[in-house]
Amino acid sequence: MDMITIDKNSDFSIHNLPFGVYSINGSEKHVAVAYGDYILDVYALAKLGLFEEFKIDISVFKNAFLNDFIALGKIKTSAVRLKIQQLLKEEDHPFWQKNATFLYKQVAITLHLPVKIGDYTDFYSSESHARNVGMMFRDPENALLPNWKHMPIAYHGRASSIFVSGTNFKRPKGQIKAKDQELPSFSSTKRLDFELEMGAIIGKDSEWQSGVDVNKASDYVFGYVLFNDWSARDIQQWEYVPLGPFLGKNFFSSMSPWVVTSEALEPFKIPTKPQDPAPLDYLKEKEGTQFDVNLEVYFETKEGQSKLISKSNFKHLYWTVSQQIAHHTVNGCNLKIGDVLASGTISGDTADAFGSLLEITWGGKNPITFDDGSSRTFVEDGDSIVMRGFAQKDDIKVGFGALNNTVLATD
Amino acid sequence: MDMITIDKNSDFSIHNLPFGVYSINGSEKHVAVAYGDYILDVYALAKLGLFEEFKIDISVFKNAFLNDFIALGKIKTSAVRLKIQQLLKEEDHPFWQKNATFLYKQVAITLHLPVKIGDYTDFYSSESHARNVGMMFRDPENALLPNWKHMPIAYHGRASSIFVSGTNFKRPKGQIKAKDQELPSFSSTKRLDFELEMGAIIGKDSEWQSGVDVNKASDYVFGYVLFNDWSARDIQQWEYVPLGPFLGKNFFSSMSPWVVTSEALEPFKIPTKPQDPAPLDYLKEKEGTQFDVNLEVYFETKEGQSKLISKSNFKHLYWTVSQQIAHHTVNGCNLKIGDVLASGTISGDTADAFGSLLEITWGGKNPITFDDGSSRTFVEDGDSIVMRGFAQKDDIKVGFGALNNTVLATD
Repeated sequence: MDMITIDKNSDFSIHNLPFGVYSINGSEKHVAVAYGDYILDVYALAKLGLFEEFKIDISVFKNAFLNDFIALGKIKTSAVRLKIQQLLKEEDHPFWQKNATFLYKQVAITLHLPVKIGDYTDFYSSESHARNVGMMFRDPENALLPNWKHMPIAYHGRASSIFVSGTNFKRPKGQIKAKDQELPSFSSTKRLDFELEMGAIIGKDSEWQSGVDVNKASDYVFGYVLFNDWSARDIQQWEYVPLGPFLGKNFFSSMSPWVVTSEALEPFKIPTKPQDPAPLDYLKEKEGTQFDVNLEVYFETKEGQSKLISKSNFKHLYWTVSQQIAHHTVNGCNLKIGDVLASGTISGDTADAFGSLLEITWGGKNPITFDDGSSRTFVEDGDSIVMRGFAQKDDIKVGFGALNNTVLATD
Repeated sequence: MDMITIDKNSDFSIHNLPFGVYSINGSEKHVAVAYGDYILDVYALAKLGLFEEFKIDISVFKNAFLNDFIALGKIKTSAVRLKIQQLLKEEDHPFWQKNATFLYKQVAITLHLPVKIGDYTDFYSSESHARNVGMMFRDPENALLPNWKHMPIAYHGRASSIFVSGTNFKRPKGQIKAKDQELPSFSSTKRLDFELEMGAIIGKDSEWQSGVDVNKASDYVFGYVLFNDWSARDIQQWEYVPLGPFLGKNFFSSMSPWVVTSEALEPFKIPTKPQDPAPLDYLKEKEGTQFDVNLEVYFETKEGQSKLISKSNFKHLYWTVSQQIAHHTVNGCNLKIGDVLASGTISGDTADAFGSLLEITWGGKNPITFDDGSSRTFVEDGDSIVMRGFAQKDDIKVGFGALNNTVLATD
């Protein structure tokens, strides 16, 4: 076979080359790289000797998770990515005679959760989202709490129930208390929602009891995924005082299968907006940056309707990922390779850029309508939420693919 | 050597035989059982053939964590414990001729964190504690929030910063805002506190999307440890709305090294008090039980003073561990072997049974005084907090040993 060519508009261009974990027909899991509609089996490439000069123990690629590969450090993981990029550019590379051993169509393979997640933290870093939720859950006059502009607020989430895109899940049950009820009752959630987020995958252990310098914090991110922090708003609202979200969130979260590396997102860095009030010194960056990544949410109904219901952007965050890391570790808390730091729901300032149904339908008051006349306030059984993300600059496109989950009925 | 004899008052009696993980002089880690002042190397016993009839892959004992051993299931783990109990009773067992290969003095060995913790959940199940904190942090008139008597409130904590007893730690830094300050400032915590808790070690994976029946929930607990949820009250108070505790807690938590099995605590089960209002069906137990385990906290100052500052009991919980498990999983959230479910601070009704300094000194208003004239409101550099726990019934004593940490100065 010749060298492969791919669609110019693919999320998985030669500039991207994200890492994931795949298997085929129940085979063992290997590290993979996405390229157009294909994947490259990185373990197979390693066995062919592509990375020989880097002196890597190639068992890191024969692995159910990326963690061991990530643990090699950025110098080596970047070198591996660049070596693959070089291969894809070299039409006469001898490997193309052996491509049956390392090349698969994406439709033929199964993708898995890319990292073994130790701890998962969910931030709350979009001002618009925090304001919107504050107005609905608490007090419209004091929607943003006094601490919000002084620190990237966050809580610990549940790692065990994070699954990869394509996983479908049953509508969760729990305690719900409507405002007009005196006592709580037990039922399936009636307000099932998504949250559009990005997840930073930690690429380097931080030392316990040693804070990470905000200006060096980006070294601790291996890459990014799309993240959906599925939420049961009625369960959440009844339970969340005083210790925060618990069962309203921990039934299921999902992430996209391909980890787009920090290097691939380098061209899409933009300066962050000035922060007022100025944060404390440990949060002050020399050059704060956000990522200009377009984010889209499609609502696909069980009847087959599909509608783009949100056009947001990773840049709509008040706090940068580096500030999140500096804050998380300033008290000595240690981050580990594979940990996920989710951004919190990314809502822009306008209703078409809101990142959750709670905000888009304003607590269920403004239903979304579809072409067939049906409507939704929250997610119903059989519906799917599909998130997409991509960055584009001149001819360079780097995308995240899709994050897709379908809701099933409660037993 | 003859069969060993131990002190009658030892926490680690023949009725206990808790499991832990040890090493000696930097050797590899093995599973161990405590007996008096001794430990038995369970891997060494396995190599001698003690568990041959159970058909166990003995590599589970040559392991840095108990997880693989626990994963064998209660039938096998109980059988292993009983086999060791039998050995300890048989004076003429041939193994006593070979005891140099499996027997060590506890003072000679190092104990490690016994389980690899996937997720850590901290409950809030002592009514007295919830009331006390509510009075100080929020509104004395409405100290207990409306949801508290309807569900075991909890939040997710940080797994990466849980360490074993004996680990010392530096006073954490963070954002603090005193009530009379307009803006937050950055400093070491001035209100460093402990929280006296028990930790349940999950012994069986629960299925994702399948709740655990409250009447079968105790099958999911392998055993218990003492747990100290170290807290920085000033950091916590400024950050905790609306998403709960984060940096005020995740700098450090600690647990005792020996996991006392559920079987060993069986004789100390007592019926729980009736709950009013009656909980929803999924939380209703046929026979709710607490554990009658005496808990003590000693404050040891850097000047060498030691004072017993709390005498509490594991039974002082409104919600049982089974109810905590049923609640945690009712929305489909999955528990995994090695997860820790901490009870929340265990405070009795009277001030001498309060489980934190926040409560004992009532927010710093009532200092603890020591015989040398010194006093404390919160923990100072060089001070240690030592927790102890033991159950006693007739001649049967089952104890947890000590959970001991010393606070070091901030860098």
